[in-house]
Amino acid sequence: MGLIANRLLCISCLLSVVVCSSGGKILVFPEDGSHWVNMQVILRELHTRGHNLTVIRSSRSFYIQGSSPLYTVITVNITQTEAVDAGIFGTLLQRSIALRKMMPIVRFFEQQKDVKKMLQIFHNGALSLISAILDDSFLTRQLQDTKFELMLVDPAFPAGVLLAHYLQLPMVYNVRWLNAGEAHMAIAPSPPSFVPMYNSLFSDRMDFLQRAENSLRYLFSRLQEHFIILPIYDKLLKTHFPPGSDLLTMQRTADIWLMRIDFVFDFPRPSMPNFVYIGGFQCRQAQAISAELEDFVQSSGEHGVVVMSFGVMVTALPKEITEAIASAFARLPQKVIWRYMGERPSSLGNNTLLLDWLPQNDLLGHPKTRAFVSHGGTNGIYEAIYHGVPVLLLPLLFDQFDNAIRLEVRGAARVLEVSTLTSNDFLEGIEDVIKNPSYRSSIQKLSQLHHDRPISPLKSTVFWIEYVLRNKGAQHLQSPANSLPWYTYHCLDVLSFLLVFILVALWVLVTLCRLLCCRPKRKQKAD
Amino acid sequence: MGLIANRLLCISCLLSVVVCSSGGKILVFPEDGSHWVNMQVILRELHTRGHNLTVIRSSRSFYIQGSSPLYTVITVNITQTEAVDAGIFGTLLQRSIALRKMMPIVRFFEQQKDVKKMLQIFHNGALSLISAILDDSFLTRQLQDTKFELMLVDPAFPAGVLLAHYLQLPMVYNVRWLNAGEAHMAIAPSPPSFVPMYNSLFSDRMDFLQRAENSLRYLFSRLQEHFIILPIYDKLLKTHFPPGSDLLTMQRTADIWLMRIDFVFDFPRPSMPNFVYIGGFQCRQAQAISAELEDFVQSSGEHGVVVMSFGVMVTALPKEITEAIASAFARLPQKVIWRYMGERPSSLGNNTLLLDWLPQNDLLGHPKTRAFVSHGGTNGIYEAIYHGVPVLLLPLLFDQFDNAIRLEVRGAARVLEVSTLTSNDFLEGIEDVIKNPSYRSSIQKLSQLHHDRPISPLKSTVFWIEYVLRNKGAQHLQSPANSLPWYTYHCLDVLSFLLVFILVALWVLVTLCRLLCCRPKRKQKAD
Repeated sequence: MGLIANRLLCISCLLSVVVCSSGGKILVFPEDGSHWVNMQVILRELHTRGHNLTVIRSSRSFYIQGSSPLYTVITVNITQTEAVDAGIFGTLLQRSIALRKMMPIVRFFEQQKDVKKMLQIFHNGALSLISAILDDSFLTRQLQDTKFELMLVDPAFPAGVLLAHYLQLPMVYNVRWLNAGEAHMAIAPSPPSFVPMYNSLFSDRMDFLQRAENSLRYLFSRLQEHFIILPIYDKLLKTHFPPGSDLLTMQRTADIWLMRIDFVFDFPRPSMPNFVYIGGFQCRQAQAISAELEDFVQSSGEHGVVVMSFGVMVTALPKEITEAIASAFARLPQKVIWRYMGERPSSLGNNTLLLDWLPQNDLLGHPKTRAFVSHGGTNGIYEAIYHGVPVLLLPLLFDQFDNAIRLEVRGAARVLEVSTLTSNDFLEGIEDVIKNPSYRSSIQKLSQLHHDRPISPLKSTVFWIEYVLRNKGAQHLQSPANSLPWYTYHCLDVLSFLLVFILVALWVLVTLCRLLCCRPKRKQKAD
Repeated sequence: MGLIANRLLCISCLLSVVVCSSGGKILVFPEDGSHWVNMQVILRELHTRGHNLTVIRSSRSFYIQGSSPLYTVITVNITQTEAVDAGIFGTLLQRSIALRKMMPIVRFFEQQKDVKKMLQIFHNGALSLISAILDDSFLTRQLQDTKFELMLVDPAFPAGVLLAHYLQLPMVYNVRWLNAGEAHMAIAPSPPSFVPMYNSLFSDRMDFLQRAENSLRYLFSRLQEHFIILPIYDKLLKTHFPPGSDLLTMQRTADIWLMRIDFVFDFPRPSMPNFVYIGGFQCRQAQAISAELEDFVQSSGEHGVVVMSFGVMVTALPKEITEAIASAFARLPQKVIWRYMGERPSSLGNNTLLLDWLPQNDLLGHPKTRAFVSHGGTNGIYEAIYHGVPVLLLPLLFDQFDNAIRLEVRGAARVLEVSTLTSNDFLEGIEDVIKNPSYRSSIQKLSQLHHDRPISPLKSTVFWIEYVLRNKGAQHLQSPANSLPWYTYHCLDVLSFLLVFILVALWVLVTLCRLLCCRPKRKQKAD
């Protein structure tokens, strides 16, 4: 019954797409959580420009809405238990905090086990979703018949990539992560001598031992890809794709990679010609906040306000950490606006306002805002850079530790260790960020550079999506390197050949020398 | 006396720079010949935007004018015989044609000798120029006192780069070539598995043997750099720069690299975040040509015209080639406009107009133009792409052979071998380009893609020059990789360390096994 209802929904969705005629027909395959926050920004812009948008989501999605006036939604029914839901982030957070208290060497091995488990959970979730789509011949036929012109994909996990190849559509990525690491790793040369690996906590200036560890991390990530991730999709590839289809090659052949990166924030590193850097595209000028909130902000007087948010995935922190933060806030002369959905801390001061949701961009752009307390999610960091607000970072999960390093080495943020956080640590940290002018001047320099570009990142985003629509792809920007095996790409076949050639030549030379040198000796002896 | 006059000229130049106050103070260090053609386009634009421009040229320059209403010129007196003059191109052309007639293996070794000689000639020329500047303490002090804000440099040879470092100025490159190869090679990862080397005549799709040859060419080019080019500047570096100064590091640390490349024409390959691709920035919409020329063009009727030019460096071709081309032209129904300064060919037809100079861009943009016959210089190729005119290529020197491959594999040009050219070959070639619609449709597809960009390449050029002026550099876009030694960059130190570690571990393991395995055996025997 649910399946029939789902199919009827799909038909009505697809019909509505066919009916609209202006703009391009774009099939959107987003990822959940904070990834969806910024995908929506692009969708709003594309809708304004008259494109027909269809979004595919899983019925187990915890953040992508099931309907919208801006786009048609196809909800794919997922019944398997492998689906990822919001609950996982709470568990991961507890584990992350526990890990941070361990000895470094123990932590490293525990982390590796965790990474394996996490990759399996997320990739099995992606497999359930793409399997549910491809196994449903009615849905796939309808998708084919709709004649989409382009697929806009967040390729963090490969379900969208596989669907784009199945439907043989040009593909634009809205991307930061792919498989098990930063998206550049999939296609741009990434020498471990100056490209820090995901979760290495290194900057791009490494000493010898750091470079050695970074190289090993690079090797591990490739092994994870080959031995953990790829096997998950083996059966699906054999069932639904031509023989010899290879997931890594499919992932590399997107027409345009809209990278959610700006080198004002990230470390400069090798790039490819079909990469377009759109970091900060989700930011916009601050709008007026509600009268109530404005009153609260104005009541801070000359001291101003501190804004704190830990993003959409982490709704609550462990009690002892919350109490430490709340009691430190209570000792500040500033007012505090804190996005928090957990139990109300007992030590909360009168100067602190707890909210379920806050207009983060507008508050960061408010002239009274003195500092931003964040977990180090990418969206929040770009908003802080856009508005030039210094940051106190308490990284918790995923890439947040790497993000923290990037802002810290530029002098624009102070980073605190959350697992051992005390009220005094937090108070000292937040006072430092508010009072020490170097944080503000550093992030304002970054802000100035971030704004100084020929066209805005959002305009650039839309331009390149429409470019692929107009030109039916961007084949000429794709290097044949995308389909080279790794040993060919790194010239290992040529090097082996040359090495064998040199060894044989040396052997021949040595043998000849021996023959020539030994004979006269024998002769001499004979003489 | 000449020296005093030169100094007085310098003083007046510099004073005039100091007097002007609007815009930025930019010191320009161009290269000669066709490089100067496109540098001028940028200077005109910068002048229009109110910047103060000072151009440094050698007194032996054969193409950079000694004065201009748009910019101040400093002419540096060069008396050494090493200076490069225009005559060299005639000699090089004769040699190139002779080489093309040799057996491939003989040609390869002859070419290597030529490359060495040519590098020495050009780099000694650059050394004379920068030595003349740095040895003149009066001139250098004046340059320092003028407080330039930026140096705009064509870094094909390193005189400008050295001066920028001497004056400690932010540096923007207008660049395609550097030292002995394509400019990317100096800083962007360039795996020889898919990045064809200069003069290899390979595309980016190579078979195993081509990749092996390409890898060897890569190795040779690095060796040339270390053993031919770098020693030329050793003494100068010791005299005028702090100890430990390294030319390659200096070359890599330009703030912005304005690359005269568009991937519509060139093969996609790894890039760096401070590379801005401006290929085709010199092209512009066609203007009306002179009435006389227009009459000639219109007289071609429906057949249209063929435009031929071999650029600014090659003024004349060997007689037998000129005659072959002229007699083939005479057999065409089209009219021909040929830029040619040599002896008038005896077989020239009535349909062919010889000119000392022609408005190439405007003729290529004329609706009557059916084909362009070119040597494959970059400027001409971009104009052909801009206006969508199919090309017949007769590459003669330098990068022209590589340019030809790029246009040929895209189906937008036919390439002929000039050393063995007959009249019939040429006629068949030009008729093919005019009559076969695939050349026109291919280059028009390239043209459409070339025009489809968020901002024009010339606007982009000016934006990034002014960006460096505004921000006093673009340090944040520079990777620390720029100053890593090559073995560290390629992780060879880490790999060696890990290899030794593994070997020692294996040795320990084997030794332990032997000890453990041997003892029981003895015991057994004893039993």
